[in-house]
Amino acid sequence: MSDGLRVWQVWMYCHLYRRLERFRRPELLDAARAGGEFLLHSARVAPPAKKCAFVLTRDGRPVKVQRTIFSECFYTMAMNELWRVTGEARYQSEAVEMMDQIIHWVREDPSGLGRPQLPGAPATESMAVPMMLLNLVDQLGEEDEELAVKYAELGDWCAQRVLQHVQRDGQAVLEHVSEDGEELSGCLGRHQNPGHALEAGWFLLRHTHRRGDPALRAHVIDKFLLLPFRSGWDPEHGGLFYFQDADGLCPTQLEWAMKLWWPHSEAMIAFLMGYSDGGDPALLHVFYQVAEYTFRQFRDPEYGEWFGYLNREGKVALTIKGGPFKGCFHVPRCLAMCEEMLSALLSRPAPAPARPIPDPARRGAE
Amino acid sequence: MSDGLRVWQVWMYCHLYRRLERFRRPELLDAARAGGEFLLHSARVAPPAKKCAFVLTRDGRPVKVQRTIFSECFYTMAMNELWRVTGEARYQSEAVEMMDQIIHWVREDPSGLGRPQLPGAPATESMAVPMMLLNLVDQLGEEDEELAVKYAELGDWCAQRVLQHVQRDGQAVLEHVSEDGEELSGCLGRHQNPGHALEAGWFLLRHTHRRGDPALRAHVIDKFLLLPFRSGWDPEHGGLFYFQDADGLCPTQLEWAMKLWWPHSEAMIAFLMGYSDGGDPALLHVFYQVAEYTFRQFRDPEYGEWFGYLNREGKVALTIKGGPFKGCFHVPRCLAMCEEMLSALLSRPAPAPARPIPDPARRGAE
Repeated sequence: MSDGLRVWQVWMYCHLYRRLERFRRPELLDAARAGGEFLLHSARVAPPAKKCAFVLTRDGRPVKVQRTIFSECFYTMAMNELWRVTGEARYQSEAVEMMDQIIHWVREDPSGLGRPQLPGAPATESMAVPMMLLNLVDQLGEEDEELAVKYAELGDWCAQRVLQHVQRDGQAVLEHVSEDGEELSGCLGRHQNPGHALEAGWFLLRHTHRRGDPALRAHVIDKFLLLPFRSGWDPEHGGLFYFQDADGLCPTQLEWAMKLWWPHSEAMIAFLMGYSDGGDPALLHVFYQVAEYTFRQFRDPEYGEWFGYLNREGKVALTIKGGPFKGCFHVPRCLAMCEEMLSALLSRPAPAPARPIPDPARRGAE
Repeated sequence: MSDGLRVWQVWMYCHLYRRLERFRRPELLDAARAGGEFLLHSARVAPPAKKCAFVLTRDGRPVKVQRTIFSECFYTMAMNELWRVTGEARYQSEAVEMMDQIIHWVREDPSGLGRPQLPGAPATESMAVPMMLLNLVDQLGEEDEELAVKYAELGDWCAQRVLQHVQRDGQAVLEHVSEDGEELSGCLGRHQNPGHALEAGWFLLRHTHRRGDPALRAHVIDKFLLLPFRSGWDPEHGGLFYFQDADGLCPTQLEWAMKLWWPHSEAMIAFLMGYSDGGDPALLHVFYQVAEYTFRQFRDPEYGEWFGYLNREGKVALTIKGGPFKGCFHVPRCLAMCEEMLSALLSRPAPAPARPIPDPARRGAE
């Protein structure tokens, strides 16, 4: 149950196989394909309905189902990436059909997700939904003119929905807003997740790149990169807080002050992407600062891999390398993307960075 | 939404009013009665069905509904206690009708709770369910011969179900077991919650007291008091861990090593009750040890009340005094019960305890 296949692992294996020469290894493709076939066979809870399980047993029986779109989003990413490396059309048609179902749930009728409609629960938008969908637009439209055109309007809609999470005269990114883009009352409305804002930041940067919108690009760097970094970085012990309250009150989540691996890997991607696009040395400086903390605090020099969960002071709080939410995804995606961006920077006729990347030998090893 | 009334607060106000002379104040009864009327009017999500909301808006609309029995259990406790202090029969009939519904959900047909039946999810029993029901048997049967007789068999059944969470030849209390009382595979099966075991311990002690079963009493003290204390007490920094893994592996919950207020208040009740019944000084010694840690680490000497959430080292991690799960319940229940037990001990012709209770002036102040 706990050692099952991860949907995002299928995506990751295919992505590494496709993008990085040294990972073009048949065993990686075979594993991804086996995972994909398992998903095709077992992911749906009640086929032909498209709702997918979040956890399956080793033999493919559903254990948990989330009343959100995220299992289906990762399913779509895995299927699209499998199509890209194998060329088999059935994977792509799975991806596009699931994408259309997700769009229907998000933009037309969420009732298929199974969430109860309670009269006292305000209609809220979690930033995770439009940002995940924006990431899918990026995934499906990559070097695919037809789908890029098909989903262009959707991409604009997603970007606009993510952008409405910038609240308080541009002074805060809030994780949940009302359906109309207003701040919600109480601690739900004040809830902030700096790593999530930074991840949304690089999804938006790629969107502005596709759309060729430099004014939006500057806004994104200001509001989704620099703002969450400034407010989310612990001035005392370093590292990004997991959760914050926009009024500076104490969050109600027990783990709010912990330092998790993935906000740091997403921050590295965001700042390196921001620097690669525009050349502002301030963004490169933050990339260094985050990377230095990350490689110093999260990596396990003895047995490899990164730890996932540190306490506020930076001490390892959970010794597990993988768990219900830490799999083969954020770390390799960060390392692969940073490697590609750094290689591109180094091949440009530009001055080399003033300081070396911390422990560069490490990056290719995971 | 977040400042709503708490069901357990109604119970607590009535309980203090009824049991402790200095709390027999009309404003406490008025507040409890107002809360009770609000619950009667608004707690049920879709009356006449009995499922209750977990969170309501200030004006009584449901915000969250849990697919468990716990909201209904606290509703039952509140109504029964309201009947005890007001004598109004409508509160008691509400309590008994809800109790019968809960018993139906637990022992006959859980489908009304709305949990999906997934083929890969093993049929598990969470210790919380029989222990909560055992606590209700205690509540409803107190000085009520008719209900004590009505629920006697249920009490035995609950005790037997809680006892089957003692696993591994008596070496571990496991939070989740199979429906047949076997250890579950994986980290779910190894999951331990020392504070919960200790709370179950004093529920069982009261059961053995009602049933007059000294052999069971010795077993409970051994397995639900001393065992969780020995394995759950942090030898390095003191205090009870929130979660543990029965194999000593790292739990997957981010907050596993934090020190929460309620396991400590439940431990104080359990050990003082164990000592009061049998006189074993070892149990009094543990009570002292827990109370000393608790009053030193959790209480706020400046503004009163207890903090709820410390990090492993004992530093306050969340400065909130109340939150989604910390209300007017564990602290006053602990202080009221300990005060009653200590008064009874002091009025006995027995040698006085060798060491004073830490900061006794504090106890009555909350």
